[in-house]
Amino acid sequence: MSKTENLESQEKDLDQGESLLAKLALEAELADYSPVKGCMVIRPYGYALWEMIQSSLDRMIKETGHQNAYFPLFIPESFLKKEAEHVEGFAPECAVVTHGGGKELEEKLVIRPTSETIINYMFSKWIHSYRDLPLLLNQWANIVRWEMRTRLFLRTTEFLWQEGHTAHANKEEAEAEALKMLEVYKTLSEKFLAIPVIDGIKTDSQRFAGAITTYCIEGLMKDGKALQMGTSHYLGQNFAKAFDTKFQDQGGQLQYVYQTSWGVSTRLIGAIIMAHNDEKGLKLPPNIAPVQIIVVPIYKEAAEKEIVLKKCKELEETLQGSFRLKIDDRDQYSPGWKFNHWELKGIPIRINLGPKDINNNVVEIVRRDTNEKLKNVPQNGLLQYLLKLSTEIQENLFRQAKDFQSKNTFNVNNEKEFAEKIVNGGFLTAFWCGNNSCEENIKQKTRATIRCIPFKLPVDQSKKEGYCISCNKDSKQKVFFAKAY
Amino acid sequence: MSKTENLESQEKDLDQGESLLAKLALEAELADYSPVKGCMVIRPYGYALWEMIQSSLDRMIKETGHQNAYFPLFIPESFLKKEAEHVEGFAPECAVVTHGGGKELEEKLVIRPTSETIINYMFSKWIHSYRDLPLLLNQWANIVRWEMRTRLFLRTTEFLWQEGHTAHANKEEAEAEALKMLEVYKTLSEKFLAIPVIDGIKTDSQRFAGAITTYCIEGLMKDGKALQMGTSHYLGQNFAKAFDTKFQDQGGQLQYVYQTSWGVSTRLIGAIIMAHNDEKGLKLPPNIAPVQIIVVPIYKEAAEKEIVLKKCKELEETLQGSFRLKIDDRDQYSPGWKFNHWELKGIPIRINLGPKDINNNVVEIVRRDTNEKLKNVPQNGLLQYLLKLSTEIQENLFRQAKDFQSKNTFNVNNEKEFAEKIVNGGFLTAFWCGNNSCEENIKQKTRATIRCIPFKLPVDQSKKEGYCISCNKDSKQKVFFAKAY
Repeated sequence: MSKTENLESQEKDLDQGESLLAKLALEAELADYSPVKGCMVIRPYGYALWEMIQSSLDRMIKETGHQNAYFPLFIPESFLKKEAEHVEGFAPECAVVTHGGGKELEEKLVIRPTSETIINYMFSKWIHSYRDLPLLLNQWANIVRWEMRTRLFLRTTEFLWQEGHTAHANKEEAEAEALKMLEVYKTLSEKFLAIPVIDGIKTDSQRFAGAITTYCIEGLMKDGKALQMGTSHYLGQNFAKAFDTKFQDQGGQLQYVYQTSWGVSTRLIGAIIMAHNDEKGLKLPPNIAPVQIIVVPIYKEAAEKEIVLKKCKELEETLQGSFRLKIDDRDQYSPGWKFNHWELKGIPIRINLGPKDINNNVVEIVRRDTNEKLKNVPQNGLLQYLLKLSTEIQENLFRQAKDFQSKNTFNVNNEKEFAEKIVNGGFLTAFWCGNNSCEENIKQKTRATIRCIPFKLPVDQSKKEGYCISCNKDSKQKVFFAKAY
Repeated sequence: MSKTENLESQEKDLDQGESLLAKLALEAELADYSPVKGCMVIRPYGYALWEMIQSSLDRMIKETGHQNAYFPLFIPESFLKKEAEHVEGFAPECAVVTHGGGKELEEKLVIRPTSETIINYMFSKWIHSYRDLPLLLNQWANIVRWEMRTRLFLRTTEFLWQEGHTAHANKEEAEAEALKMLEVYKTLSEKFLAIPVIDGIKTDSQRFAGAITTYCIEGLMKDGKALQMGTSHYLGQNFAKAFDTKFQDQGGQLQYVYQTSWGVSTRLIGAIIMAHNDEKGLKLPPNIAPVQIIVVPIYKEAAEKEIVLKKCKELEETLQGSFRLKIDDRDQYSPGWKFNHWELKGIPIRINLGPKDINNNVVEIVRRDTNEKLKNVPQNGLLQYLLKLSTEIQENLFRQAKDFQSKNTFNVNNEKEFAEKIVNGGFLTAFWCGNNSCEENIKQKTRATIRCIPFKLPVDQSKKEGYCISCNKDSKQKVFFAKAY
């Protein structure tokens, strides 16, 4: 297959939002299609963004008492089958290794679609007594879940993620852990990625295969679709029973451990792309932008060039301890080309610096969140100015996304209203009786699914009771619906 | 298979050095065997060590102008076949995916044993002009090369590594790059891991499959075996021709790029274990020790405990900006147990702190490199004292290893001397005619291989000519032989 055909076949069937995602991811050089269908290549700019997300989250994971470890890529096929729901959920998505070292294997190996099984096997070796608990581990790893279509960052056969796996002496502690890590994910999303989320509980149909409860955070993208950005599972004793993971409690009794698992992935890069963009390209929040400030020197002849570049270097020295800064001093591109280039890449702050600015002891600043040009900013006190501006951009991107979410969250009271509203996307809040068949009915008719049973409803929705939008039966539970990636 | 049987079967056939490695890796909780033969689990302490190595090396990789990216785990089987030597070298070690998403695949996928092929496929899409060069990328990834026996960290079916891949406009620049990265590896090994290395060129029989030249660094372990700690390859245009990776040069001509690749892996953890240990356990160099200082509070009754722990906290506050420090305040273990525990784990510096020390305004320090006890070290000025001590320990561990290497490097002049000396291990320097058959002959008789043709011989070896130890023909080339892992 030629490269062009391959690309086209990977891009066909994409809807409008997906096309925009692909366009931005490719043009901003965040990712590219791989020759293997469903896989992607994360290019340096995309990977730098992942490193920023990683370092923010890794710090929070460690601050909450977890340690990193690394478990094998290969899982014996029999392991997957030990937990009935788990194998049903994951077997159809697995890549299977049948040959290794030139021979057919006695037992097939699946490539981890998630690591609960192999980790429980190890936990059962390591955990003996209540003194070994809680055991709080995390791993950064690649994961494989088969996809026929590639949606860069959002759905790919291989993706990068972290998966936390913990074991506890009792139910309460494990449940608290699952909620604590959901809160960490919410902080990551809102404070770093500047994406407001709805947090809540998944319905049975969307629950992780093998979990008792799946908690989630859901973001709303600019094309009106919801994106599941992170999940945290209370696993109860399901895997402990399957793998005989027991501990001796303080009374000397053998008990199964209670467990959690939780993960976020490179999908978060897709979330950033789809939550913050305009017709010029990406808009990266300063807290996770690999480059926060781009300096574009502006000059005509060689004499000017020298003066301008010298001043740029001075600026760099002043700012580099406080910011991730880059000077684009490439000769072969015009300033205009550079403006477009770095706007496409979503750099939060651009400094334009020419001879006139130098004479006047000022710089010109362009902020990417609003595309506003700030002329004649004094060089004196620039560091403080930029620190303030950077915070403002971070907050403003969150505010913009929050406004968008509020304006695109609609309460609906019946199936007719639902059908009308869902056409334009957004979150729909509606009463639901709790029956899987009603959820399925809505999905069949509208392609919308229940994103979560929220912990908290929007403030303007005081009504505590109503009628299920599908079956009209009494309901005390309002949920968030949306079309989702 | 039961867990015990599995462990035993994984451990059988290990020689003495390998047994020590397994014992230390398991007892210090660096790693454990996985249920899949040949694979291992990296436990939190081992992974923390890997994170330390990663952060040191990643900084140097970035400082030398490289960017991180991520390429897919899956490589189409046909890619491997495009470079004739490459497929011959790697196909027998590959794990092969034949089924995905519940279906048999049209084309089998191999799990990357190294990524030259898939990266060249992408390079050929990205590189068009000399302006796109040099292209300097690196990735941190997991790799699979089938092994029937597990030697924890040294040989495992799956391992973690970084692999650099670069493309250049000419031969000279590519060769300089390969050597530059070898130098980075040497710095990593000597300045961070405190392991002296011999650097040089691999013979044809040990060259990377697909390379023109393979450079390497070789360390000597305490059991007398050599360990290849890192390799850097000048690939010439071999992969460029196989994947049609071309650029338009400044004269408008299409040319194939010149390339390099280079990598180090979690094997370096094995090197640390085998280069620095004694009968008490590991000895970690301070520069990469996840915990540099362990504080053990010593007390009898509750009143003492409170005072001692308060003082420990004060120490922590003074030292924590400068050191990675931990207080072992666990009640269920005695000080003696803790001493053994942290010695096994190789913590460079231990501070013992009891009521008497507090009264006298001193601490007791035990350094792990020499196991020397430093009594009555004044608390006043302790930070400066410890900074100096830490540097001294780092340097001393290197010096110890360097002495060991010097004492175990022998010059031999003929096959008889070779056979006598090789029994006790160590590096043997000897003249070699350059013929593969002589190298093979020595290997068959002694199990020793040529580790490298060194850039520089030991200072005491001034003789520039001699006779090949195998065929006795004239030779102008002295090489390093050793038995190797």
